[in-house]
Order: sequence, then structure tokens, then C-alpha cells
Amino acid sequence: MGNTFGHIFRLTTFGESHGPAIGGVIDGCPAGVAVDYDLLRRAMDRRRGGQSALTTARREADEVELLSGIFEGRTTGTPIAFIIRNDNTRSEDYDNLRQVYRPSHADYSYSCKYGIRDHRGGGRSSARETAARVVAGAFAQMVLRDKHISIEAFTTRIGSVGMAPDTVFDSAVADGNVLHCPDAKAAQAMTEALTQAKAAGDSLGAWVHCIVKGVPAGWGEPVYDKLQAMLAAAMLSIPACKGFEYGSGFDVSLPGSQANDAFCIENGRIRTASNHSGGIQGGISNGEDIYFNLAFKPIASISQPQQTVTVDGQPTTLQVKGRHDACVLPRALPVVEAMTAITLLDAYLMDKAIHS
Amino acid sequence: MGNTFGHIFRLTTFGESHGPAIGGVIDGCPAGVAVDYDLLRRAMDRRRGGQSALTTARREADEVELLSGIFEGRTTGTPIAFIIRNDNTRSEDYDNLRQVYRPSHADYSYSCKYGIRDHRGGGRSSARETAARVVAGAFAQMVLRDKHISIEAFTTRIGSVGMAPDTVFDSAVADGNVLHCPDAKAAQAMTEALTQAKAAGDSLGAWVHCIVKGVPAGWGEPVYDKLQAMLAAAMLSIPACKGFEYGSGFDVSLPGSQANDAFCIENGRIRTASNHSGGIQGGISNGEDIYFNLAFKPIASISQPQQTVTVDGQPTTLQVKGRHDACVLPRALPVVEAMTAITLLDAYLMDKAIHS
Amino acid sequence: MGNTFGHIFRLTTFGESHGPAIGGVIDGCPAGVAVDYDLLRRAMDRRRGGQSALTTARREADEVELLSGIFEGRTTGTPIAFIIRNDNTRSEDYDNLRQVYRPSHADYSYSCKYGIRDHRGGGRSSARETAARVVAGAFAQMVLRDKHISIEAFTTRIGSVGMAPDTVFDSAVADGNVLHCPDAKAAQAMTEALTQAKAAGDSLGAWVHCIVKGVPAGWGEPVYDKLQAMLAAAMLSIPACKGFEYGSGFDVSLPGSQANDAFCIENGRIRTASNHSGGIQGGISNGEDIYFNLAFKPIASISQPQQTVTVDGQPTTLQVKGRHDACVLPRALPVVEAMTAITLLDAYLMDKAIHS
Amino acid sequence: MGNTFGHIFRLTTFGESHGPAIGGVIDGCPAGVAVDYDLLRRAMDRRRGGQSALTTARREADEVELLSGIFEGRTTGTPIAFIIRNDNTRSEDYDNLRQVYRPSHADYSYSCKYGIRDHRGGGRSSARETAARVVAGAFAQMVLRDKHISIEAFTTRIGSVGMAPDTVFDSAVADGNVLHCPDAKAAQAMTEALTQAKAAGDSLGAWVHCIVKGVPAGWGEPVYDKLQAMLAAAMLSIPACKGFEYGSGFDVSLPGSQANDAFCIENGRIRTASNHSGGIQGGISNGEDIYFNLAFKPIASISQPQQTVTVDGQPTTLQVKGRHDACVLPRALPVVEAMTAITLLDAYLMDKAIHS
Repeated sequence: MGNTFGHIFRLTTFGESHGPAIGGVIDGCPAGVAVDYDLLRRAMDRRRGGQSALTTARREADEVELLSGIFEGRTTGTPIAFIIRNDNTRSEDYDNLRQVYRPSHADYSYSCKYGIRDHRGGGRSSARETAARVVAGAFAQMVLRDKHISIEAFTTRIGSVGMAPDTVFDSAVADGNVLHCPDAKAAQAMTEALTQAKAAGDSLGAWVHCIVKGVPAGWGEPVYDKLQAMLAAAMLSIPACKGFEYGSGFDVSLPGSQANDAFCIENGRIRTASNHSGGIQGGISNGEDIYFNLAFKPIASISQPQQTVTVDGQPTTLQVKGRHDACVLPRALPVVEAMTAITLLDAYLMDKAIHS
Repeated sequence: MGNTFGHIFRLTTFGESHGPAIGGVIDGCPAGVAVDYDLLRRAMDRRRGGQSALTTARREADEVELLSGIFEGRTTGTPIAFIIRNDNTRSEDYDNLRQVYRPSHADYSYSCKYGIRDHRGGGRSSARETAARVVAGAFAQMVLRDKHISIEAFTTRIGSVGMAPDTVFDSAVADGNVLHCPDAKAAQAMTEALTQAKAAGDSLGAWVHCIVKGVPAGWGEPVYDKLQAMLAAAMLSIPACKGFEYGSGFDVSLPGSQANDAFCIENGRIRTASNHSGGIQGGISNGEDIYFNLAFKPIASISQPQQTVTVDGQPTTLQVKGRHDACVLPRALPVVEAMTAITLLDAYLMDKAIHS
Repeated sequence: MGNTFGHIFRLTTFGESHGPAIGGVIDGCPAGVAVDYDLLRRAMDRRRGGQSALTTARREADEVELLSGIFEGRTTGTPIAFIIRNDNTRSEDYDNLRQVYRPSHADYSYSCKYGIRDHRGGGRSSARETAARVVAGAFAQMVLRDKHISIEAFTTRIGSVGMAPDTVFDSAVADGNVLHCPDAKAAQAMTEALTQAKAAGDSLGAWVHCIVKGVPAGWGEPVYDKLQAMLAAAMLSIPACKGFEYGSGFDVSLPGSQANDAFCIENGRIRTASNHSGGIQGGISNGEDIYFNLAFKPIASISQPQQTVTVDGQPTTLQVKGRHDACVLPRALPVVEAMTAITLLDAYLMDKAIHS
Repeated sequence: MGNTFGHIFRLTTFGESHGPAIGGVIDGCPAGVAVDYDLLRRAMDRRRGGQSALTTARREADEVELLSGIFEGRTTGTPIAFIIRNDNTRSEDYDNLRQVYRPSHADYSYSCKYGIRDHRGGGRSSARETAARVVAGAFAQMVLRDKHISIEAFTTRIGSVGMAPDTVFDSAVADGNVLHCPDAKAAQAMTEALTQAKAAGDSLGAWVHCIVKGVPAGWGEPVYDKLQAMLAAAMLSIPACKGFEYGSGFDVSLPGSQANDAFCIENGRIRTASNHSGGIQGGISNGEDIYFNLAFKPIASISQPQQTVTVDGQPTTLQVKGRHDACVLPRALPVVEAMTAITLLDAYLMDKAIHS
């Protein structure tokens, strides 16, 4: 229960942070897709630790071994399974966590639920699981790319440092900084904030904006599988994600007369004059850009001493060893893009299924 | 596709705003539950139009006819089906909508998806569908109430009028105004804003806060069926909902050292000293209060003239007749509570299933 | 749990034999299908009691009220809900069953499972539920018919009277008897056996053969959703069905060298010279006729006195009143065809979904 | 689509016969189960080739590598993933199959469905996939064994040689022959038939009987997830399985007055005097033994020359090289037991979920 995402394009993942391997099985990938190994490699590299001073020192090769579903460079329509070995684990770093619950981690709630937990590196609750999402997302991207659909996630806030609100996305600028932020000046301030937090053994929360271009009208299902509901579930399933808003989101300053998106004709095609709807109306895409914002809490693993309790209910002070980032960004960006791609491809295949 | 919610406690709904009836089927309701018809009636009354000057003049009896799954006042474990007749429809009010797409409604996206649409009152995309959710939510509440779990949703913002940020919830105050807002002064200002908007043929967006007390530690599944992911999907499936945040949500001003919830011992029980986690850690409840915020856009149906296009792609001006509220609140409050109850009961039953 | 069938074309049914109504919700029916009310009526008439001396005296009108999902004579792609009122119930006939478990009925196992049961007419376990399947099957047939797919079920055995094994199906002959048996002489003997059984207050088992023509190659999914697995589940879900075999089935007299279906070219098209595979290879249709056999046990409701026990565990003798058939045939024939149609349409839509 | 079985205890498998590995992911296994590696090993050994003269010469080690979901010898409630390397593949044996469709294999139907196929050893349609089922079945058995539930499958027919119909199962006798047949004399004749078929480059069909003892009353869901429907789907998903019957099955010689299972009191417990119901009434177990019969067609791979066509539609004669058994038995026996165990554990967990 709970380890599968999607209706037709379905990802099932497995694995603990410090077990032999993590991995996943993709069922429902269309047959005949030419596998773009470079696309997969690039996505994995972006998620992997060790690219910059901001990210963890655990340098995993993250070699993806593809086990099935591919024949002579093309998908066959059968399940695509893959594993990623956990070859740089230092489980002894976690020995002191066997008897203690780390604050704002899943240790306590997992123990309550299962009566047993793999305490090493968070076990199943580790963000390492997101590597499997990136693999599946890469396959989804291979299909979506052929439909001229692009997905771009970028940083808009780190702690109290926000991007200038009216920044227009410019990939040249975003590509120039590790946070993929289109506001170069803000990116610099964000990086400094992260450097300071890391030095202080602390961590920071962040915001992400994601924009999807090229989705045709008609994707998403009425009522419970509205496109925004599936996207929200996808995003809130990412570790540390605390909020999702799409289109105008939490900004309710405009009345309906101004918030409504008037339909108009542009180049002979029905468009909307504004896009407060975020590309989705009634749960179904309307052909405009789909965009949403996400909030991520500060990473719970910090090296400052913290008050907590032991598994026996004794107060104690915990100082976590190990290697940790000061923020889920930038590593969460490819995860956001992967979950977006998976959700959209699933919506596309669902839409295909219902037309006779 | 898309008309079923839940894994074990499953609600499937049907019906268009102006068809013969709407309704639903609840599968997976535990057997032996004493049916509390008053609880059901009260929930339906809160959602129904016509209770106050703020809500629509369409006064539907909303008589729920229970068709199955109940024997001598108790649930039998078999599907509970129900219908609600659409007996106060004035379809002729909608004749002018056959040839035109209403801005920020589902008209255009449904047409693109299905090639056919019931234009009367929004058809399947009408918020009238939420009445079926309230019925199912009432059954979920009957089970949860016996477990001493309470769910309370209330208004915190209407347009630009927000509740005082540090307001402590006081049901006596909240019960004193139709918006169920615990800040009496703000409630008054909100009501005035709504009255003005209605007079101007306009509409306003809103925020809702929902708090759940009494959920034990251990509900929710790892990874993709995290409790917050299921709640987010539930909420974003409600018409007009544009955003979801739980716990600290989009507020990322605190660093990890302050945002982390230290564990402590209180009355011999493991608790957290703060609750930025919103009662959920690693996707699983930790025994603290679960709380979240929602954003709702202004209702798209306004009586001011709007620019739009016909189904043939001709620009036109639309003036919508019919009966409409100026805001989804307060009528959306019982819907939020219903979807919360459905999600939590489903999580409870999922948790039961995995213990041998 | 358990009241929904299908993956994309999904039927959820509800209702007890003696409650207010039974019915169902079809989700995933393609949009734009012209509703053929005559097709629906004919299928319902075939399943309904009272057509001949062989079937029950409970003459229900079985009026199907369609509540949603249809607009101006066409399906809209939204759920099609329907109810059938239980308007000829004589619940007092069942008063003596409240305290006793009927042999080979679901009374005891339901009681063990739920701790509560609606004893009137079998409650949820009544074959009356199959009326809802016939409604959904009619919608599936409307789609399949346009693809030139035909489904025909007929009687091949009643008790110890079997059809001549080499009978070629001839609809003119089959249409000439109520059992729809293509062997006129056997049909006569079967009818006599049923008449005798009914007179003796007894019942008989039966076999059904079903043949599907026109399914193209490619329907069905590998491994767990093999076409034969979905068909078997569909058939074994019909009350009283005890066995399913397809193609050569339980006849294993031929060795592989004779049982294998050699491929050949016929009119420029790849065909098989024989069809021991029953039109399915590796779980996927191969373009040949799909055919299977079913076994149905004698109806458990007989009017002879039977030994049984009360709910309190006291031995007792039961004599069942009420109106019962002597065999599930011929009334089960349209149910078999309906479940076949539902399964095939679902397989078709699943196949569509996976092609990008 | 199609590669997952089960509702709560869910198995997803992957892998082709001649790819790098096959394997699976078990989601929903209860936490805290002590892993019995010997039980797993024994089940794998029974399914593996090379145990006797009757089975294939492909001697695979079938080393199961467990990748996740186990911590210090116990299940953790998180997904249990495993892989089995394909380390003894001789793909060159299959080069001549790239251009030709093998009779009664999945080659043609897969090609029609996907437009691409891995021709080596049947690819995804290979019975090698069943090794993954045996792994999952072993975990299910670990849970069921603690509930004193036993599952036993044995051979009752090979080709035209059947077990004496009134044979009482005696494990001492069954353990004495590789076919696990409780009729020693018949087992000898069956073995000879298989030896002759193998020598002739031919293959034979077979029947299996499976009996389950110890299932309490109450497992199985009404209507579409009846226990027999889930078992039938499980069995028909096994390669080469052509038929399923439970209880009295296709034998309809008895009228209802004799076929009904009278309830009686035995040792203070409600029992049935006979068991034509096969332990299931109304889709729900009634506490008696559950038993069913299966038919398996002759293995399609034979070494005699066969008429077939090339992928280009040219008639050709095929002589299959490679290593093949003459019958799916005895290797299919542990697969039948595994699928039975998976289905029953799933039914148990579903039953637990619906009680509040």
C-alpha cells in the first residue's frame, strides 16, 4: 500500500536508504519509445549529491541498472524495472539513531505504525527514494518531449530570500546558478543564505515554481482525478513538501470579475486573455500554460543539538552526524519535474483510454 | 475514470446539475454502524443553498434517498447508495449557454475532452456534485466520531478581509456567524464584503482553515499515499479550490533549528513541543492535531457582462442569468469537512489492513 | 470493496433484493455513444423473470431509470447511473429466514463476515444484482457492436441432459427454444428435465457455452490481466457459477503436436488452422473466435424440506417459501453476455491507453 | 497495466526470460513477519528446472536477491523487492525465432499488440515470470502458516492418464513421486507417459487439484471480488492454464436437493455435512476446505517440426531448439500454491480492512 503512483503509467518504488538497493518498476509505459539514455543520465546527475558546495558529500554514483522492458533500445510495453545500488552507505553513522526519534523525521510515526523500523538513514522515508522517481520521470519525459511538452522547475525562495516577484523566466539566467533561479541577484543572496545555514549546522525552507508548456486541452478527469488533484498528490508525496497552489492559488485579492479568464481568439484558436486558472478549468487542461508553486520545509536533519526522546520515552539531546544538505533545493528540482512528467503522461494515457 | 475517491472506503459519485438526480455509492463502509440520520441532515443543511442572504436562492430540498446497504438502522457492509433528485432546476435559464463558453468554467475544457457537454448548469462540473460528498462524509463521521475524532473547518479570509492572524478558535464565536469564523469582527467585515460583491454582481475568493483532533499516530502510508498527499488530492478535487498547505505550509521563514518539532514527554506520552509538522511526519500521523489551509478562487459565475467566445469561435459578450453565490463559503465548509472525514476513514482502514 | 468491476470501463453496483432499489454506476463509458434503448430493453427482458413456465413467478417490471451521463440521446463520458426499483417484493415470505441459515446460500458466510445480514431474499447476495450487470453490458454492447463484435451464449447442458457434442450453432434453432440451445431435440429433453425438477421442488445445474466473434488481435494484458483471467473473474463472479474453461479447457487428451494451433495464411491474413487456444494466446486475443464454457450449480433455493441450523446453532428443518426458478438458465444467459461485453470493452480501452 | 496482482497484498513483477533479470515487488506485506529463508528456498527449488529427468536441462541457480523491506530478519511493512538474475541464457538458441511466430505461443499476439517483441525465450510471456510469483507466495505462506492454513497442490492427470477418482490424499504417497500424485500407480503411468512424450519431442496437458485447509469463515468479498473469482483470475493468469472449477465444478449430475450442503452442528461448531460448495458460499469462505481443479494445456514448445508463418506472412516449417519440459507439471505445482497463498492473504487483509 502506498508505494505505487499513477493509474495507467504506474510507478512502484522500493528500497531503503541503507539497504542493498533502491529501485522501481514502471508499468504502462507505451511500447516503441526510443530510450534516451542521456536524458536519463542528466536528470539523475541533477538529483545526485555532490554537484556543488551546497549539497551533501555523499557522492553516490547512482548507477541506474535497467533490468527489463527494453529491447534493442526501445521500450517493449512490458514493465521497465531498474535498481540503483546503495554503495556508499555508512550505516555506522546512524547507530546512535536506533534508540532515539529524530525531531520532524518519520522515525516516531513509522515506529507507531509498523512496530519496527530500519533506523539507518531514515530507511524507507529517506529522500533517496526520489531517485527512483527521477528514473520514471525520464521515461515520461521521453514520451512528452515528442509531443512538444516542456516542464521547468526553478527556485523562487530560500528561507527569507525571495526572487523579485515580477521576474520573467529566462533560462540563460537560470542556467547560470545552481538553484536554477531566473533572478541572478536573488540567486546570489539565496546561495549565501544556504552557505550560512550550512555553516551554522542549520537548514532552510524554500519555494519552487514549475511551469508546463504545450499540454493540449482535454487532459485530466472530472471530479476526483482532476489534473490539479493528481498534481497536488504527486507534489505532496515528495518528502518535505508542505504546500501546493496552482494558478492564482492563495492570492484571492482579485474579485471574480477580474480573476476570471476571458476567452478570446488568437491566431484563429480559442485562448484565454489571462491565465489565473493556471491552465486547468474544471480539472481539465485548457491548452494554456500549467503552472504551480510548492513549499518545502527546512530539511529536518541538522547538526545542531536538539531536544528529543528515546524510544523508551526518555528525554535526551540528539546531535545528528552524517552528511546532509542545508535545503532540499536544488536537488528537489528534478524530482518536481519528474513527478510532473509522470502525472501528465498518466493523464494523457487516461484521456486516450476513454475515447472509443 | 475519475469519479471514485478512496482506496477502501470508496465513494463513487454521479449526476449532472440539471439531470434527473445526483448521487453516489459508498463501498467499504464498515458493517454495524448505527446510522445517525440527524448528523446527515445537519451536514446537508449546511451545504444546501438558501440558509442566509449570502447564498443562492435555489432552494433545493436536497432530500437524500438511501437505497441500499442499511438494514434496521445499521450499515450492513454492502454498498450504501443514495440519490438526491434535482427538483428545482430551471434549465431554461441556461439555454443561452449552449453556444457559449463561460469564462473560468469547465465548459471549454469539457468540450475539448469529450466533444459533447451538458451545458445546463455546468453539467457534471457543477458544484452540486459536492452534495454527494457530504452524504459520504456523514457516514465517515459516524465512524470517526466513535473514535473521538473531530473535524472543524472555518473561514479565515474573504477576498481582502482576513481573520486576525493570532485568533484562537472558539466555537462559541464561530457558531455566531454564518461563515463560522472565530473572529467576530472579521466575520462582520467579511459578510459586508460579500454583500457588496453580490450587489455588484461579482464574487470573492476565500481561505479555509481545517483542524482535526484525535487522530492517533500511525495513519497514512509511506511515499505516494502519504496522509498529506491524500488530503491534498481530496481538497484540490473540490471545485474552485486552488491551494493546499499543511503545518507550516508556505511559511518558510524559520530555519530547521526552529521549525523542527522537538519530541517531549507530556503526561507520560510522547508528544511534540511545537506542531509545525501539522500532525504528520513522513506521511504518517504522529498523534498531534492535523491542520491545513485551503484557498478558493472567486466563483466564476458572476452577473456582470464578460468577454468570451461562442463554441464556433466568435467573440461575444456574456451575461449569465441564474442563481449564484458570491463565494463558495460558507457552503464549502461542510464539503471540506466531508472530504477530510472520507480521507481519514480511508487512511484508518488502510492502516488496519496491513497489520496481520 | 468488491462491488466494482473493470479497470477503465468500470461498473459499481449496489442494492439488496428487498431494499428500495438496486442499481449501478458505469464510469469510463466513452462519450458520444448513441444510446440504443431497445437493445437495453431486450437484454433486460431476457434476464427478467416470468417469460416462460420455467422461470419465477416474481414478475418485476425491472424498469431501468437512467439518472445521469446521457445528454440528448448520447453518452457524455461522465458516469451513467441507473436504478431499478424493487417494487414486487414480498418480504414477509422471508420472515422465517431471519433465524435460519439456508443450505448452500450466502446466509451463514455473510453473517460470519459482517455480523449482520439482510435476510430478505438473500439481501446483497441475491442474483437480482445481475440486473445491474445487464444494464452495463448493454452499454458495452453498444460500443462493441459498432466494432462488429458479436457475443452469443447458449445452453449446452441441463442436469444430465447434454447437447449433442458436435452440434453446430444455428441461431434459427437456438431462437426456437427458451434455453437458446442449438440442438432442438436436446432442448426439448432439457425443458422436460426442468419441468420435472420444478414439479419436484428441486433444481438442476447447467452448462453454458459462449462465443465471441470479431475481436481483433491485441486485446488483453500480459501476466495478471490476461484476457482469460479477466473473463474467468467476470464469470466466477456470477452467482452459482462453479467453473470456467476456454479453448480446449479441461480436455487434455491431445498432445502438444496436435493441440498447438498452426499459423497459416488465409486470404492474405495470418490465421490459425485450428483454434484450441480459444482465440487467446499469451493472454492476448489473436483474432480468432474467443469461446469458453461455464458450469452453474443447481439453484440453492428449493422447496423440498432441508436439514440445516438456526443462527443459534440449533438443528432444524427448513422449507423455503417464495418464488424460485429450477435453474439459473435461461435467465443467466444475458448475464453471461453482459459480463463478457463489459470485460471485452474494458480490455479494448486498456489496450488503447498504452499506445502513445 | 497487467503486471500487478492483488488489492492490499500486491505483487508487481517484471522481467523477460533473456533480459538481465526477472523479479518483483511485494507491497502490503504485514510488518514484523519473521522471514523463513528455508521456506522460500524450498519453494524455489520445487519450481526450478533440473530436479528430475522430466524437467528442463536449463539449470538456473535461481538465486533470489532480496533488496528491501526486511530489517534484521523481519519484514518492515515497506515493499519487499527481489531480483533473480538470468544467468544461464543461451539467447542464440532463439535467433531463428526472430522472424517466425511459434504456434500456440504469445509471439503473434504480442506483436499485434505492441508492434515490438523480445523474441528470446518468449520474452515477457515466458513462464520464467512465475519464479517471481513463488517468491511472493513464500512470503504469503509465512503469514498464513501462522494462522494454521495449509495449501497443497498435486497432479491428478497427465494427458490421458488420470488418478483413480476416489483417491484419498496421502502426503506420504504424494511425496514419493515427483508429480506429487497421491495415487502411486497412476503416478508411475503418468511418468511413463511424460517420458515417452519427451522422447517423441512432444508434450502433454495435465490437471491439478489444490486443497486449502484452515481458512476461517468470512474471507472473500461480495459480488465482483468473490473468493472464487479472485482464485479463478489468479489461476488463469498462470501460463498454460485453461480451466478452473471449484467445489462440484463442471459436475452437474446432482440436483439441488442432493448438491446443497446441509448445515449441521459438529463439536459445537456450525459445519456443512457435505462440501459441494468447495468451502465458499456467496463468494465468502464458510470454514470448510477450499478446493479446486485446474487444467493445463500441453506446453507449446515441442521439438517436432511444425507448420507456421514468418513475421512477413510466409508459410514456413519451424523446428524449435532450446530446452523444454514435456509438461508444466510438476514445476507448476508450487506456482499454483503460491498464487493460492497470495490470493488468500489478500482476501484476509481485505476482510480486516472493512471492520471498524
